[in-house]
Amino acid sequence: MAKQRATTTIATRASGRAGNAASPRGKRDDIVASAIEHFGQEGYEDTKWADVAADVGIGSTALYHYFESKLHCLYVIMAEALESFELAFDRITREHEDYLETLLALLRLGYELSEHEVLRIRVLVAEQGLVGIRRSSPREEESRALARARTRDLELAWAAFLKRGMDEGRLPQADPRLLARAVLGLNLSVWHWYRPRGTVSLQEVADFFVRRQLTVLGLPPALAD
Amino acid sequence: MAKQRATTTIATRASGRAGNAASPRGKRDDIVASAIEHFGQEGYEDTKWADVAADVGIGSTALYHYFESKLHCLYVIMAEALESFELAFDRITREHEDYLETLLALLRLGYELSEHEVLRIRVLVAEQGLVGIRRSSPREEESRALARARTRDLELAWAAFLKRGMDEGRLPQADPRLLARAVLGLNLSVWHWYRPRGTVSLQEVADFFVRRQLTVLGLPPALAD
Repeated sequence: MAKQRATTTIATRASGRAGNAASPRGKRDDIVASAIEHFGQEGYEDTKWADVAADVGIGSTALYHYFESKLHCLYVIMAEALESFELAFDRITREHEDYLETLLALLRLGYELSEHEVLRIRVLVAEQGLVGIRRSSPREEESRALARARTRDLELAWAAFLKRGMDEGRLPQADPRLLARAVLGLNLSVWHWYRPRGTVSLQEVADFFVRRQLTVLGLPPALAD
Repeated sequence: MAKQRATTTIATRASGRAGNAASPRGKRDDIVASAIEHFGQEGYEDTKWADVAADVGIGSTALYHYFESKLHCLYVIMAEALESFELAFDRITREHEDYLETLLALLRLGYELSEHEVLRIRVLVAEQGLVGIRRSSPREEESRALARARTRDLELAWAAFLKRGMDEGRLPQADPRLLARAVLGLNLSVWHWYRPRGTVSLQEVADFFVRRQLTVLGLPPALAD
């Protein structure tokens, strides 16, 4: 019964999003949106790939035109999520002049997510283990390698940004790579337990965690005020 | 070829551990040990349940006497890992008098792991998503519910311990539940990327992360020295 309701919600949301569902790109994006809802709410392993097809109103065979497998779609979701973080990272570092202002904006960015984006990042953290395993199918492997490369790129972008702060005397010296992992790890840990409309609001989580990320960097938490 | 080698290593390690493989408990523990090596190295999803059976020298049918499914075994591994953390948590809080000494010992405990235990905790964090989903099989559901309850118990034990520190004036005031999640989350994030015999030693990771966990708690990192 609960499952029935969840599926209906997913179908409604996914089709509500699709203004241009007639075009191949629109259909592909609909599949991705529906898969994010299913994987995020029911878990990747328990999602039936045929349910995603039904949601967007195509047959399983047509679905394979867009994605070779459920796993292929998962890797594409991960790669796209990581790309959007990278783009936002670049935008914020371009938009701000002051180092600490940039840092704060980058930290806050990690919690400025819609409910759909929360589901997407939950999928990303819950299925991280699958990114480490090489695939024999070329299409799966291409998307997996992309997700893996973007994870590393994001970590390296953070490490380089932190290194610059150390060089400019804005941050205490530390191993930039380990520090990047600690700062990102603290943010990513949130998506294992945070649920929209739970007892703690995303704003409270952001306020709490950004302050802790600042202390991890060796900065006073009051910088966030 | 690489896969072949990994499997051999797993088989050797698992049988090397089994002194009393003839007894039912010994066989069961062998299956758990082999499954941890497979899930931790190849990933849960990619592990063939039959490979675990082959490792411990029993047929797939006999395997089902011990575990209903690969998923059942996964939940048992998780529940056992969490139980060992709970037992260690209780032991350390009994052994130490001073609050800050206890805290330091508890934080360090999170990194005092053998290679086999690193694999076990990697399985725990990589497959956390599966703990949230109710199962229809009674045996699977029993183990899943146990893993879930122990996760919550460990979080609550940490929150209660932190609350006591705040009440006694040893820690700055904060939301104990969120703080417990941040401290545990920082530790658990390590197992997504740490690999034994990689470029960073477990000792270096422990030194770095315990200091950051102290700052998250609002304490000076030099307490760890």
